[in-house]
Amino acid sequence: MKKKMLAIYFDGNAKVTDRDVPVPNRQEALVRMQYAGICNTDLEILEGYMSFKGIPGHEFVGVVAESPWDKSLVGKRVVGEINISCGQCHFCRSGLDRHCPDRQVLGISGKDGAFAEFLTLPISNLHEVPENVSDGMAVFTEPLAAAMEILEQVDIPKESTVAVLGDGKLGILVAQVMKIKTDYVVCFGHQKNKLAILNDMGIETSLENPGWDAKYNFVVDCTGVPEGLRTALRAVRPRGTVVAKSTYHGEITLDFAQPVVHEITIVGSRCGSFPPALEALSHGEVRVEALIREVIPLSRGQEALALAGNPESLKVLLHNNT
Amino acid sequence: MKKKMLAIYFDGNAKVTDRDVPVPNRQEALVRMQYAGICNTDLEILEGYMSFKGIPGHEFVGVVAESPWDKSLVGKRVVGEINISCGQCHFCRSGLDRHCPDRQVLGISGKDGAFAEFLTLPISNLHEVPENVSDGMAVFTEPLAAAMEILEQVDIPKESTVAVLGDGKLGILVAQVMKIKTDYVVCFGHQKNKLAILNDMGIETSLENPGWDAKYNFVVDCTGVPEGLRTALRAVRPRGTVVAKSTYHGEITLDFAQPVVHEITIVGSRCGSFPPALEALSHGEVRVEALIREVIPLSRGQEALALAGNPESLKVLLHNNT
Repeated sequence: MKKKMLAIYFDGNAKVTDRDVPVPNRQEALVRMQYAGICNTDLEILEGYMSFKGIPGHEFVGVVAESPWDKSLVGKRVVGEINISCGQCHFCRSGLDRHCPDRQVLGISGKDGAFAEFLTLPISNLHEVPENVSDGMAVFTEPLAAAMEILEQVDIPKESTVAVLGDGKLGILVAQVMKIKTDYVVCFGHQKNKLAILNDMGIETSLENPGWDAKYNFVVDCTGVPEGLRTALRAVRPRGTVVAKSTYHGEITLDFAQPVVHEITIVGSRCGSFPPALEALSHGEVRVEALIREVIPLSRGQEALALAGNPESLKVLLHNNT
Repeated sequence: MKKKMLAIYFDGNAKVTDRDVPVPNRQEALVRMQYAGICNTDLEILEGYMSFKGIPGHEFVGVVAESPWDKSLVGKRVVGEINISCGQCHFCRSGLDRHCPDRQVLGISGKDGAFAEFLTLPISNLHEVPENVSDGMAVFTEPLAAAMEILEQVDIPKESTVAVLGDGKLGILVAQVMKIKTDYVVCFGHQKNKLAILNDMGIETSLENPGWDAKYNFVVDCTGVPEGLRTALRAVRPRGTVVAKSTYHGEITLDFAQPVVHEITIVGSRCGSFPPALEALSHGEVRVEALIREVIPLSRGQEALALAGNPESLKVLLHNNT
C-alpha cells in the first residue's frame, strides 16, 4: 500500500487532502518539506494560470529523506531550483536550461510542488543550505534568486539611479538587491508598513508615484500590473533600462513611440540561479526575515492561502509540523 | 531685401513655394542642398506627426555655401547630423546629445529642414563626405546611421541568427548592416522587387512571415506597424533580443507575459552617429544606390512626395537643380 501524506491539492478548488507520497524517479530525491512560501504565482495558479492541476508550491526548504541515486544527500538541508529541464536540447546544452521548452516547473507546470509533506526533485536541482542560513531565510532562496536574476542580465554601474516600483515581497527583495550595486535606490509603493522594512535597512522609499521629471537609469517594475510597466516607461531616462519583473496576464496597452525615440531597453526577467542567492543570504547582503507575515501549519493550508491573498500581507509560510 | 529660395513648406498642406534663404546663426553654416531623401517620417509629418510646421526634410547631401565661423568649410561636400542639442545639459555632457531634451531636430522639430535650396546647421553637425562616396550614396548617410545605431546598442556575436522584419528602405539597410556581423540574416517582406535587392547581395529573404517554430537570437522590426513588434516577440528565442526600429504611433496592444517568461530584451533604437555610416559607405560594406526609386527636381516636390507615399516605392530623392 502506498504511503500517504498531507498536501494542498488543486483541481479547480484548493483543498488540504491526503495524497500518495511521491516516489523519486531516476536521478530524483525525496525531500521532506520544512517550510514552503506562498507566492503570488501560486495565487494566480489558483485562479487558473498555467491550467495547472496538482500540488502547487515552488518555494521551499526541506531535508532530503530518500536519495537512491546519491545516498550522501540523505539528511541534508536543501532548497531546490524549480525548472526541470530535459538536459538534451539546444537551450540545456548552452546553459539556458531554465528556458528548456520541454521543461516541467515545480508546482507550476507538469510537476507536483511543495505544498505537501514531501516532494521530489532531480538531485541536480538541489542545493545544500549553508549552516548560517536558517530555514526561515532559506525558504526565500527562490524569490531572491529571481530578484538577483536582474544582475545576471543587466550591468548596473555604481553611480546608477534605480527606481523599484512596487512594495510587495518581490519589490522589497529587488530593492535590496539593487542596493548591493548602487546607493541611489528608491522603492515606490503604497503601503507604509512594507516600505518601513526598507527604511529600516537604509533604503529610500516613496508613497508617491515617480514624478514626471524624475528620470532613472534603471526602473524595475515589480507591481504585477500593466500600469506599473507604463509608469516605468515614463520614469526611465533616455537610453535607460526598464526591467519587467512582473508576469503580466493578458494583453496590455502601451505607448511604444517613447521607448523607441528615447532608445529605452526593456528586459523581461524571471527565475534565477540559486547559488548567488544562497551566498547573498549567507553573507547577510539581503535580509528576508522581516518579510514573514505568518507561519501556518500545512494542515491549515486553506487559511494560509486566504491570508496570502490579502493585499496587505507579506510572505505567508506553510510549516510542515507533522 | 532677403534672398529667396525654392522650398517645400508645410503648414497643414505641403506646397512648393518661395521662402527666405536662412541666415546662419552663431556656429552655423549655410549649406546648398544637392540631394534630399524623402523618409517615411517626412510622410508622417505631413500627416501631423510632431505638429511640425516649416520646411521638412532631414536626409541630405550638399555643399557648404557660407560658413562665417569656419571659412575652411566653404565648398566642402557635407552631410549633417539632424539633432541640434543644447550642449549644456546632463545628456549633452555625457555623450548622449542625441537625447538632449531641449534639442531641435532638422525638418522634424523646431528647425527648417532640407527640402529647400538651402539649409543651415551648426558646423559641429556637419561631416565631410569621403571622395569615393558619391552624392547618391551620401544622401543615405542619415538612414544608414540609424540602421547602424543598432550596433552601438547591441552586441551581435558572429554566430547569431538575425531576422529583419520589413522590406522597406530601413529594413533593407538594416539587413545589410546585420550581415556585417553574421552570415545568418533573413529579411522578411512582402515585395519581391525589394527583397531582390538583398538577394543580389547574397542575403536570404522570405515572402512568408517567420514560422511559429523559427526562433532567432535577434529580431529587428522595421515594419513600421505594431503587428511587426508582435511578430518579432513571437519570432525571437528565449533570452533573445528584439530591436524596435520603427516609431509606432499611438498605443499598441501586446501580450507581455511571454517577453517576461522568456526573458526577452526589447531595445528601442532611433538615430545614429554619422562617422561609422560614412565609413561603411566608403568601404563598400553597405550598398545603397539600388534603393533609389527616382530622382525628382525640388520644383516638382509635390509629385516627389506623392511618389514616395506609394507603398511600392523605395527611396525618392529631391534634386536641387536650380
